[in-house]
Amino acid sequence: MTTKSNIILGANQYGKAEVRLVKITRDTERHSIEDLSVTSQLRGDFQAAHLEGDNAHVVATDTQKNTIYSLARDGVGSPEAFLQRLAEHFTTSFDWVTGGRWAAESYAWDRIQANGTGHNHSFVRNGQEVRTAVVVKDGNATHVLGGLKDMTVLKSTESGFVGYPKDKYTTLAETTDRVMSTDVAARWRYNPGAVATVDFNKAYDDVKALLLEGFTEDYSHALQQTLFDMGKKVMDAHEEIDEIKFSMPNKHHFVVDLSPFGQDNPGEVLFAADRPYGLIEATVVRENGSDAGNAWEGMAGFC
Amino acid sequence: MTTKSNIILGANQYGKAEVRLVKITRDTERHSIEDLSVTSQLRGDFQAAHLEGDNAHVVATDTQKNTIYSLARDGVGSPEAFLQRLAEHFTTSFDWVTGGRWAAESYAWDRIQANGTGHNHSFVRNGQEVRTAVVVKDGNATHVLGGLKDMTVLKSTESGFVGYPKDKYTTLAETTDRVMSTDVAARWRYNPGAVATVDFNKAYDDVKALLLEGFTEDYSHALQQTLFDMGKKVMDAHEEIDEIKFSMPNKHHFVVDLSPFGQDNPGEVLFAADRPYGLIEATVVRENGSDAGNAWEGMAGFC
Amino acid sequence: MTTKSNIILGANQYGKAEVRLVKITRDTERHSIEDLSVTSQLRGDFQAAHLEGDNAHVVATDTQKNTIYSLARDGVGSPEAFLQRLAEHFTTSFDWVTGGRWAAESYAWDRIQANGTGHNHSFVRNGQEVRTAVVVKDGNATHVLGGLKDMTVLKSTESGFVGYPKDKYTTLAETTDRVMSTDVAARWRYNPGAVATVDFNKAYDDVKALLLEGFTEDYSHALQQTLFDMGKKVMDAHEEIDEIKFSMPNKHHFVVDLSPFGQDNPGEVLFAADRPYGLIEATVVRENGSDAGNAWEGMAGFC
Amino acid sequence: MTTKSNIILGANQYGKAEVRLVKITRDTERHSIEDLSVTSQLRGDFQAAHLEGDNAHVVATDTQKNTIYSLARDGVGSPEAFLQRLAEHFTTSFDWVTGGRWAAESYAWDRIQANGTGHNHSFVRNGQEVRTAVVVKDGNATHVLGGLKDMTVLKSTESGFVGYPKDKYTTLAETTDRVMSTDVAARWRYNPGAVATVDFNKAYDDVKALLLEGFTEDYSHALQQTLFDMGKKVMDAHEEIDEIKFSMPNKHHFVVDLSPFGQDNPGEVLFAADRPYGLIEATVVRENGSDAGNAWEGMAGFC
Repeated sequence: MTTKSNIILGANQYGKAEVRLVKITRDTERHSIEDLSVTSQLRGDFQAAHLEGDNAHVVATDTQKNTIYSLARDGVGSPEAFLQRLAEHFTTSFDWVTGGRWAAESYAWDRIQANGTGHNHSFVRNGQEVRTAVVVKDGNATHVLGGLKDMTVLKSTESGFVGYPKDKYTTLAETTDRVMSTDVAARWRYNPGAVATVDFNKAYDDVKALLLEGFTEDYSHALQQTLFDMGKKVMDAHEEIDEIKFSMPNKHHFVVDLSPFGQDNPGEVLFAADRPYGLIEATVVRENGSDAGNAWEGMAGFC
Repeated sequence: MTTKSNIILGANQYGKAEVRLVKITRDTERHSIEDLSVTSQLRGDFQAAHLEGDNAHVVATDTQKNTIYSLARDGVGSPEAFLQRLAEHFTTSFDWVTGGRWAAESYAWDRIQANGTGHNHSFVRNGQEVRTAVVVKDGNATHVLGGLKDMTVLKSTESGFVGYPKDKYTTLAETTDRVMSTDVAARWRYNPGAVATVDFNKAYDDVKALLLEGFTEDYSHALQQTLFDMGKKVMDAHEEIDEIKFSMPNKHHFVVDLSPFGQDNPGEVLFAADRPYGLIEATVVRENGSDAGNAWEGMAGFC
Repeated sequence: MTTKSNIILGANQYGKAEVRLVKITRDTERHSIEDLSVTSQLRGDFQAAHLEGDNAHVVATDTQKNTIYSLARDGVGSPEAFLQRLAEHFTTSFDWVTGGRWAAESYAWDRIQANGTGHNHSFVRNGQEVRTAVVVKDGNATHVLGGLKDMTVLKSTESGFVGYPKDKYTTLAETTDRVMSTDVAARWRYNPGAVATVDFNKAYDDVKALLLEGFTEDYSHALQQTLFDMGKKVMDAHEEIDEIKFSMPNKHHFVVDLSPFGQDNPGEVLFAADRPYGLIEATVVRENGSDAGNAWEGMAGFC
Repeated sequence: MTTKSNIILGANQYGKAEVRLVKITRDTERHSIEDLSVTSQLRGDFQAAHLEGDNAHVVATDTQKNTIYSLARDGVGSPEAFLQRLAEHFTTSFDWVTGGRWAAESYAWDRIQANGTGHNHSFVRNGQEVRTAVVVKDGNATHVLGGLKDMTVLKSTESGFVGYPKDKYTTLAETTDRVMSTDVAARWRYNPGAVATVDFNKAYDDVKALLLEGFTEDYSHALQQTLFDMGKKVMDAHEEIDEIKFSMPNKHHFVVDLSPFGQDNPGEVLFAADRPYGLIEATVVRENGSDAGNAWEGMAGFC
């Protein structure tokens, strides 16, 4: 006569997060460095672990970590390629692992300039942005996402904000000349049919350059417009990309009122505020592009 | 004769993030305090802003911030109730706003003990966990999510990990007695039919207490099992909750090998590691519960 | 005939930082937990390492880490006592180590309430503040500093700010009723003669309680005044303490102007700002107290 | 007949911290940007504020903020020069302000490359390091400190660690080839006599380049040795600098043992650890250089 319905296990995944992997390639005197933080999460039949504490299916997260290091012995190549190797390994090695999510951040290093040239084995971290990558595998479908985050840009003019609706809560004054600044976070999804042939590192460098260039172009009537233009610019040039999502704060720079001190301030002295901030999130997609499936699930800050 | 498909606008939302709102209620000498960080994001028809820089539909994020403060003048009550008021306001005030996502973190304060009693108007921040809430509105559907994060717990025994599969990458030794520690992050979804009558603050306190109590009970064969038990305990007691999701790191505490120094170490001296960490994510759901719709979209770290 | 003066080695110290040590005491069923982050830094004759790369004097930082874990096997007791044991060990084990600086943060855990009572071996991190301790040893002198940080307090009335000088850059309006909030960071120096007999854990609990109680008392004309009162309260009650230093931000809570929306706001709806913030630092000392020597060197944020 | 000694006010300072100042220079179409976080702290006679709540001497921290913005209207120039202007202003405007400490972080921006050239008014944050500056004024003495922090470097060979003392707590194996990595934090003190004529921006760029180049040179027998070499290189080239202090973590990169998986690992696959880390702090000074006075007080992480 119970009226309660059953309590059951729903969607789940598990693994090892933020495995810090540094790969030095030192086959010649001119070393190179790859620096990543890798997360591996498995999906499949893990019912018994949750309900009965039976670990027969639980590939230890420590084992996942070991696998990451072992596979890196043969090189990383690109984050996207490396994550695909992990996905392939885990889904083919264990019957009950039917999919998963593998993610990486990677950090760029420049050669230190010494005596006028890039040094063979000394590096300084670049710090301009963090590169991101995700591979989601679900049965036969594999989604590959490139990306970057924390790339802070600013334009000191050619931006305004006018023509917005005014209601009883509106106090903002219109402006035709303001500073616009944001931290670009973008994730782009490769067409599954193209994944086998993409040069991910080359694509990354080019997408980053296009995003930066796109930010500089045209007067901005709203961050929304600039965002769309940046995305369109990338997708016009990269037919292998079907979709790009942005999450970009509007980092407010307020012109300080210096009139109490007898000074003008033609947009020269600004207060860079922390919080609150505007937050603009949007997707630029290829009409009739490939199906995204569950590629974007569990991704924060992207609508 | 172009072969390129059209580039169009996909899913999008925007608003003001992390509006720091402190509400003091001071109608008697015994003040009370509510402390929140509120994010408002609108969804609807914002095509023209992205494609043409036409802001006629763009309710300024500054206006959204003002609205948050103005509505707080009449009190917050609970984060979940306050976010619903925001959702209602924005979706009824502007034809083209068809939905959105409103989120809050809130921070608990205790009265300072002075001269043996809780002080009337002096408080110390509690810091045990951060309370979270989300309201997602999409047409007629409204989803309300309670939650908490950063609640760090540890049990010093009654936990083990054995019986997992051993492959060529497995080096982990089995153990029947280990320290288990995690930062509990949980989000629970209220049944839409129950939302009108739930006392959200009371429910929150009770769910938190059940999660903590659930963590203490039974020998843990895996963090997965403990997670499921914690969720089931909550949902057995709260029929108004249809689903609870967890994202819990396995914060490794390694027993330090003291044998080189001629000492034993029966699980007394441990190294608390930072990275990597295990990461266990799972959902506990009520069979035949309400449909989650898009309630969980854009939520990081919950599968 | 060089005109350049010699370039030589000045003050130096080195060691292992942030050794994460968790000590479980489990001699009965009722376990207890001590959770610290310990830093050990040695001073002495390390000239050859810097100038010639000769490591004969360089006690490896890995060895310092091992020593921390080994000494913890016999218990921690209190951070201050444990750091003194480290200081004693290193300065007596190596002739050329003449002193050093040992520091700890420690994190409090509460027993989880389960079935109405504190659980034997399950804990939840408290999070109200971080306890700090430092021992500085220099020849025969040993300085012991207790402390805490990140204890966030707020009083919602009984604070004002008036009577300050007005110059051409002054725009701030006077107020006799404002919210005052700060993150208390305090460090107190024990009289060297008292160190042998102080119960550091008991003293810590009492000092913390006095700081909190002191914050509640009296109308505050300035954070400076409240700071001094808090320090005096501690030192009146603790003759074993010769000095207490504070570094306390004035965390501004601005009353939001709701008049554009037709609402009053009698100090009820506030914006909690991040940056900039006031920063008040001061020392409360016992006249004719012991000499501080180099106890405070290298301590940030305390003048 | 009280036996207690008096409780009195000791050293103190106060002000506004982390004033976020962005200065756009836009007198031509080619804009430039200066981006700083400025902290102003005053010292002098503030006894009455602490003891009696009398604010007659308390130059409001809000006034200090306003002054920072107002003085920036005429340009920043260099952080060191701007802080000196602040010091001069406050110590000459108020009789009872006898000194203080002014500090800044600054953040570099690069022009965005668009269509093959640096854009006139669009910038991307550089992120390689944070520049720091401090001015301490005490009566007639003024100390100017340049600096940088968070500059992460790594050399993938030409580093070892051998010959250190072995005691009962030593388990570390010697190595003649390891990865060495650190986050360089350095602060250098200019000779007071040279301050009037130094081009601080030019000096900064050159010191940074010398630090990087110094890191690449010579086999490193210990981080201590490399630190000293870096400092000496700077001071040999910059006679206007009398002292340079370093605080550099030894960021351990452990070679992963791949032998359980049948693989070798000749220093190619590494685990980058977070905590604990080595911490090396030392000063390189010019013999018979100028007196540092209180220049270094309240500076964390520099011995």
